[in-house]
Amino acid sequence: MELRHVRGAPAGIEQHELKNLPSSETPAKITVIDYSPDRAETQEVKDIQAFITQHRPEWSQAQGIRWINVDGLTDMKVIHALAEKYELHPLAVEDLMHVPQRPKVEPYPETGQAHGRLFIIARMLRLVDDPEGFAGKQLLGEQVSIFLGHKTVLTFQERPDGDVFDPVRARINTAGSRVRVNDASFLLYSLLDAIVDEYFPILEHYSDLLEELEDQVLEDPQPSVIERIHTLKRELLLVRRASWPMREMVSGITREVHPCLSETTRTYLRDVYDHAVQIIDMVETYREFASGLTETYMSALSNRMNQIMKVLTIIGTIFIPLTFLAGVYGMNFKYLPELDWHWAYYAFWGICFVTAGTMIWWFKRRGWI
Amino acid sequence: MELRHVRGAPAGIEQHELKNLPSSETPAKITVIDYSPDRAETQEVKDIQAFITQHRPEWSQAQGIRWINVDGLTDMKVIHALAEKYELHPLAVEDLMHVPQRPKVEPYPETGQAHGRLFIIARMLRLVDDPEGFAGKQLLGEQVSIFLGHKTVLTFQERPDGDVFDPVRARINTAGSRVRVNDASFLLYSLLDAIVDEYFPILEHYSDLLEELEDQVLEDPQPSVIERIHTLKRELLLVRRASWPMREMVSGITREVHPCLSETTRTYLRDVYDHAVQIIDMVETYREFASGLTETYMSALSNRMNQIMKVLTIIGTIFIPLTFLAGVYGMNFKYLPELDWHWAYYAFWGICFVTAGTMIWWFKRRGWI
Amino acid sequence: MELRHVRGAPAGIEQHELKNLPSSETPAKITVIDYSPDRAETQEVKDIQAFITQHRPEWSQAQGIRWINVDGLTDMKVIHALAEKYELHPLAVEDLMHVPQRPKVEPYPETGQAHGRLFIIARMLRLVDDPEGFAGKQLLGEQVSIFLGHKTVLTFQERPDGDVFDPVRARINTAGSRVRVNDASFLLYSLLDAIVDEYFPILEHYSDLLEELEDQVLEDPQPSVIERIHTLKRELLLVRRASWPMREMVSGITREVHPCLSETTRTYLRDVYDHAVQIIDMVETYREFASGLTETYMSALSNRMNQIMKVLTIIGTIFIPLTFLAGVYGMNFKYLPELDWHWAYYAFWGICFVTAGTMIWWFKRRGWI
Amino acid sequence: MELRHVRGAPAGIEQHELKNLPSSETPAKITVIDYSPDRAETQEVKDIQAFITQHRPEWSQAQGIRWINVDGLTDMKVIHALAEKYELHPLAVEDLMHVPQRPKVEPYPETGQAHGRLFIIARMLRLVDDPEGFAGKQLLGEQVSIFLGHKTVLTFQERPDGDVFDPVRARINTAGSRVRVNDASFLLYSLLDAIVDEYFPILEHYSDLLEELEDQVLEDPQPSVIERIHTLKRELLLVRRASWPMREMVSGITREVHPCLSETTRTYLRDVYDHAVQIIDMVETYREFASGLTETYMSALSNRMNQIMKVLTIIGTIFIPLTFLAGVYGMNFKYLPELDWHWAYYAFWGICFVTAGTMIWWFKRRGWI
Amino acid sequence: MELRHVRGAPAGIEQHELKNLPSSETPAKITVIDYSPDRAETQEVKDIQAFITQHRPEWSQAQGIRWINVDGLTDMKVIHALAEKYELHPLAVEDLMHVPQRPKVEPYPETGQAHGRLFIIARMLRLVDDPEGFAGKQLLGEQVSIFLGHKTVLTFQERPDGDVFDPVRARINTAGSRVRVNDASFLLYSLLDAIVDEYFPILEHYSDLLEELEDQVLEDPQPSVIERIHTLKRELLLVRRASWPMREMVSGITREVHPCLSETTRTYLRDVYDHAVQIIDMVETYREFASGLTETYMSALSNRMNQIMKVLTIIGTIFIPLTFLAGVYGMNFKYLPELDWHWAYYAFWGICFVTAGTMIWWFKRRGWI
Repeated sequence: MELRHVRGAPAGIEQHELKNLPSSETPAKITVIDYSPDRAETQEVKDIQAFITQHRPEWSQAQGIRWINVDGLTDMKVIHALAEKYELHPLAVEDLMHVPQRPKVEPYPETGQAHGRLFIIARMLRLVDDPEGFAGKQLLGEQVSIFLGHKTVLTFQERPDGDVFDPVRARINTAGSRVRVNDASFLLYSLLDAIVDEYFPILEHYSDLLEELEDQVLEDPQPSVIERIHTLKRELLLVRRASWPMREMVSGITREVHPCLSETTRTYLRDVYDHAVQIIDMVETYREFASGLTETYMSALSNRMNQIMKVLTIIGTIFIPLTFLAGVYGMNFKYLPELDWHWAYYAFWGICFVTAGTMIWWFKRRGWI
Repeated sequence: MELRHVRGAPAGIEQHELKNLPSSETPAKITVIDYSPDRAETQEVKDIQAFITQHRPEWSQAQGIRWINVDGLTDMKVIHALAEKYELHPLAVEDLMHVPQRPKVEPYPETGQAHGRLFIIARMLRLVDDPEGFAGKQLLGEQVSIFLGHKTVLTFQERPDGDVFDPVRARINTAGSRVRVNDASFLLYSLLDAIVDEYFPILEHYSDLLEELEDQVLEDPQPSVIERIHTLKRELLLVRRASWPMREMVSGITREVHPCLSETTRTYLRDVYDHAVQIIDMVETYREFASGLTETYMSALSNRMNQIMKVLTIIGTIFIPLTFLAGVYGMNFKYLPELDWHWAYYAFWGICFVTAGTMIWWFKRRGWI
Repeated sequence: MELRHVRGAPAGIEQHELKNLPSSETPAKITVIDYSPDRAETQEVKDIQAFITQHRPEWSQAQGIRWINVDGLTDMKVIHALAEKYELHPLAVEDLMHVPQRPKVEPYPETGQAHGRLFIIARMLRLVDDPEGFAGKQLLGEQVSIFLGHKTVLTFQERPDGDVFDPVRARINTAGSRVRVNDASFLLYSLLDAIVDEYFPILEHYSDLLEELEDQVLEDPQPSVIERIHTLKRELLLVRRASWPMREMVSGITREVHPCLSETTRTYLRDVYDHAVQIIDMVETYREFASGLTETYMSALSNRMNQIMKVLTIIGTIFIPLTFLAGVYGMNFKYLPELDWHWAYYAFWGICFVTAGTMIWWFKRRGWI
Repeated sequence: MELRHVRGAPAGIEQHELKNLPSSETPAKITVIDYSPDRAETQEVKDIQAFITQHRPEWSQAQGIRWINVDGLTDMKVIHALAEKYELHPLAVEDLMHVPQRPKVEPYPETGQAHGRLFIIARMLRLVDDPEGFAGKQLLGEQVSIFLGHKTVLTFQERPDGDVFDPVRARINTAGSRVRVNDASFLLYSLLDAIVDEYFPILEHYSDLLEELEDQVLEDPQPSVIERIHTLKRELLLVRRASWPMREMVSGITREVHPCLSETTRTYLRDVYDHAVQIIDMVETYREFASGLTETYMSALSNRMNQIMKVLTIIGTIFIPLTFLAGVYGMNFKYLPELDWHWAYYAFWGICFVTAGTMIWWFKRRGWI
Repeated sequence: MELRHVRGAPAGIEQHELKNLPSSETPAKITVIDYSPDRAETQEVKDIQAFITQHRPEWSQAQGIRWINVDGLTDMKVIHALAEKYELHPLAVEDLMHVPQRPKVEPYPETGQAHGRLFIIARMLRLVDDPEGFAGKQLLGEQVSIFLGHKTVLTFQERPDGDVFDPVRARINTAGSRVRVNDASFLLYSLLDAIVDEYFPILEHYSDLLEELEDQVLEDPQPSVIERIHTLKRELLLVRRASWPMREMVSGITREVHPCLSETTRTYLRDVYDHAVQIIDMVETYREFASGLTETYMSALSNRMNQIMKVLTIIGTIFIPLTFLAGVYGMNFKYLPELDWHWAYYAFWGICFVTAGTMIWWFKRRGWI
């Protein structure tokens, strides 16, 4: 348990810090979704060279929107091919590859040879089941880099092992859904909304843990509680570090004046912004609550120490004088008159009980027992 | 007691976090109040379909204001019917249903087919009697969503079990009251004022509790005090989390330039804003005060520990050397000259009293007794 | 002492929170001062109805300034009469009656039927002697509401038991004083200056107390010290809660563009603003200092505990082994060779002294004695 | 030592708070320096009346700059004479006499009868040797009030016992130095630069003390350390309280558009501003460092307590059971078989050593020894 | 180890504070790199007088960029020669020589006789191996002063013992690299990027240490841990003090409108800015984490104390009453009936075991064992 916790630790802090450049080039998984108000089609791209030379299907050319999702950042061929085809700015490409970056939004203006695009970095958090992890879960962070064009959205994810976009995909495949009838920037909104909404169940999980820890602190404060509070605070620190720049980023998009961003999307993004603010509120509240728990735990510990001290004091106070008395009558003085008294032994016990009784009464009065 | 506290806990944190979508569709309670400077009428709507096809009463058409209040958010038919009739923006409708949202104000501009409306989310706090709750009360939070139109105000409450709007209703039914002679936005002001004013008795309740806890800490610091401080801090955390965005929201309305908002209302809203700021001041002061109490409690605890240690030390210091001396004269050495002395036993007691007296005098001088 | 402190407590927190609406209507005391550069006259108004129908004295009509001061907020007749005569805004009248409000400034623009006035709420703090209070003093807070017109200043105080305006009155009665030769807004400045300047002796009182408490903490940390620090922190919390909005209020006036405010007054108000900032600086410094004192007290307590523990340890370490040895030679084994040795008893004492000496030397070396 | 510290204390806090109006009027010391690019002359003024009626020396009339420095604020005649001659604003004169004021800058615009001047209040800190003071030094704060005119600079210091302007005087007396060839505002810059630069050696002094205290905390944490940290924190609090408004004041000057301020001076003042920011950085870092030291000290104290407890526990654990055993064989039961065994005594010692050995081994394993 | 730590300390705090003016003038090392898109040449300058009179090589005159790097600030001749040749502002020259300055950017506008230049102070941090240092490393801070002209970049470093610019030099020497084809301000970007990027491995080093310390705190909290946390916090304080002004400085450059700064560079500098923000985020997170560790350590310490207390209590509780009983039967009363009972001795042992058993059971139930 100790060890797991320790092994789990780097995953927590490190994953956000280290530039993990994997050793072997695993192939990236590319999924392309074309949709227009009438139609939606999903294809998986195997051959990147063939793909970038193809044109869009005819039905998609006028109104259609293309979403290209790339899972995995190690296949340089794929990234370079897409960067070239979609004229992505070299700095943006560097940022998407050197994870982790801080969530941000950057406009790249239309130039002679490059399309104007909005480049967005978001941080996707997920809680996955992990028997080794803290409270049976592990917090995973992943960078999602998004390029928004007029009719194209490119997203790049770090790892191929799942994301939070399934509801978006479902809505794209539903005829008449809002995402189908709106423009590309609405897809951007949908993706950001899906990312931000995933923070809520994570926080609810931590809220449940906090409740549980509070029960333990108030009822039976074990040393292991403080370790769990410690770990919880640390995970909240990570969520907080992700959520503050997310808020700034969303707020940055709403302030951005960019041809790719429609007014409708801007209205909807206010909602994402509100959610990001709410998440920060929750994180800060939980963090303060966890700090309060630590304080309460420490005072519970002091209380317990006090209680133990009381027992010690009571025993000492009662028996030490009596033991002294027994020692006195164990002395071998030749002339020790009490030894010869007939009722001395019974008188001794009498003194003992009276002394002990008086002391116990005195302790009760002082509120020590 | 322990258990109640624990069971009560989720009600505190969770209620603000969880999206509680009730399982069964209980019918919503709809109350409609029409009023003009001359007249006021209240009706309860049973059949929503009939209602939305009716026109307003004739006397109300020119000058009259209609306030529709919906209690309960589970009857989708009602909400959709009203949303359609009053052309509410889908995002706003989503926000009103997915409680809890952060208090906020959002203008929806007049478009071709939708009226321009101001959408406001407020958080209503109430303290209700609850023998199971903390200090016999339970803090309830409820979201109130308000749509302000030119002559119509719609309010949606989460639960049908009471609200803080009775003073507003009374004033509407009073001929010549300010709310009767003003426009719809003045009703909005009255509602927000009622919500914000309800925070004051809540804070006074906590102020009383703080006074009480302070007495306990200074006079008789029991371990249960720290639990109560802990719970109080937590409830203050919840009030604070509600009041900060309330302030922002009210300030947002006063800055908003919207055709539905009259200049008079803006002047009156400054008052609501002042109250919101005052509430935040109070919450922060109470929180600092509660933190100070925890510190004072911890030092009271240390003092008590010190006192117990003193008793232990005094007993040890007095009796341990004497017990050693008694042990010495209990030894069975053949050649132990003192044993044969005639006054040895009395000398022994003399030494005991002198030693003990000296020590007690020394402790007194050091200020330990 | 304990009890007094506790009874005194509500006076501290509560007075700022509770809307104290007194049960019986005690008559308000109204004092009117008319002055012009040449002349000043003070009258006490007994009959409010007669007063409001009178005109000003002739000499005062062109250049004269009238200051009406009302002590006590319970006589509704008086307040309503003045509100009607001077056309005070209903919201302002509400604010002045429902104490306590947060210090603030609100302009009421000139309308068809009402004069443009500046409405100001200030918080007056006074330390009055009170043998029951903390350190023989009690901190009283009182709301002063001020209406500034072109040639009239109205002030409303909560209680009739004294204020801080005597220096202002003296200056008005001094021919050639600055307040006499300037306009009505300069009187406003003088009043605010008097209120803010009264904060300084209060802070000096707390500064003296802090010095005294610091001496106690460093020289003889008694448990009562922490209670006094606790109370001091609390009073500082109250001063701080009054001074922050005072600063905002003064800064608000200097930014206000209002026909009643002259340029000269604005220049002088910068001085009041500087004083308010200085007060906040002092409060924050004292609060940090008090926090530091608590920490230092706690470590002094730990030191004392350590010292007591040392005594216990030394006694235990010296006597417990020796008592064991005495016990050994008190055993009744038939074959216990040392008992028959001739110098055994003297050897026993020798061992005792050598052991005790060695231990004391060892403790000295470790720095425990 | 205790007492000195206590007596020293008011000097620390009080000197910044109290308006010290000295009882007797000691004559102020007035020094006048005239300089132009070619020439510099210093004179001490004995007769203020004679001085204010004189004209400047001829060589100084066109290009010359006059710096009048007044040491001591108790000679009202001097101050009033200068205020009249140089048309200083009455509010500024009040501020310069009622020390301490918060550092600030205030422009007084040119009016019909008064020259436009810039009025600046700065806080000069000096560390002077004082065997009674903390670490052999005492921190002195003094207000310097500066009036900047076109060709005249007036400075007023609180006390005549030295200042930090000697380097400026030296540079004025050096032909070709920058201050000689620039205008009056450059002299202002030089004075502020001298004041701010004096903060650095003070902070270095505290930095040295912090290093020293850190050594003591880590190597031999004595109770006196905490008192010294406490005093150091307090002095840093004072430096901080001086340096924050100094930064604001300097920044205020650079933003001020005033005819007396040249562009060159503005460029140079950026440097003073940078230094003020650096000083605040240092103070904050030292304060955090001192807080860290307190924490480390407290944990060192706890460690020491733990160690003492360990010794107590070991002694108790080893000897108490053995003493019990010795007590058992000291009982006087008639039928106590072991007493008659031949090797019982040796067996007893054997048991003692084995028990003690086992316990010591067990403690070692748990890491308690 | 203690001592090293202490000796290492000044290097930490002091190096950032003290103006270290070395006693002897060691010659500065000057490296000049000329490059244009086609060509790059590096030369080391031995004779500064010869150098400043030379012209650039012909191929470099039109398009070429010259980077002059000076290592060591003690050779006044070199600095003055360069300052004269490149018309550096005297204030800037002072700032570059009086290390340490706070990182900043200052534009010096083009004047009649001086070129407009941008003057930048940056703080370079490096971790170098040092067996004496904390965790085998020492944190070195060095000021880098940069002058940006149209075609020239001058950099001044404090010490000649290495820098972080090797990657920049490598890229300059690579034909076709971005730095080769861009202007002088791009070289500035490259240098700042190299400086800021070096912060990341430093923070990763501290992150590793934090992980390690966390393991120690949770598994085996030794007193030395708190010293290491203390040192770590201190080093983070230094990194933080460097990184906040670095962020401001970079942000200042991006806001600066200066002819030497190209639009491309501005785009790239956003990246440096993002990294600086990320570094601050990391430092703050680590600092909070370290604070959490201290708290957790303190509670681990309390736990351990509690455990020791428990052992003491158990021993006391079990043996003290039994010892008393043994003392009773060691008394020498003539009439003590139990002494003559046949099974008394065995009954005594029975009582002992029953009492001890009961107590152990009771402790187990209370959760003390």
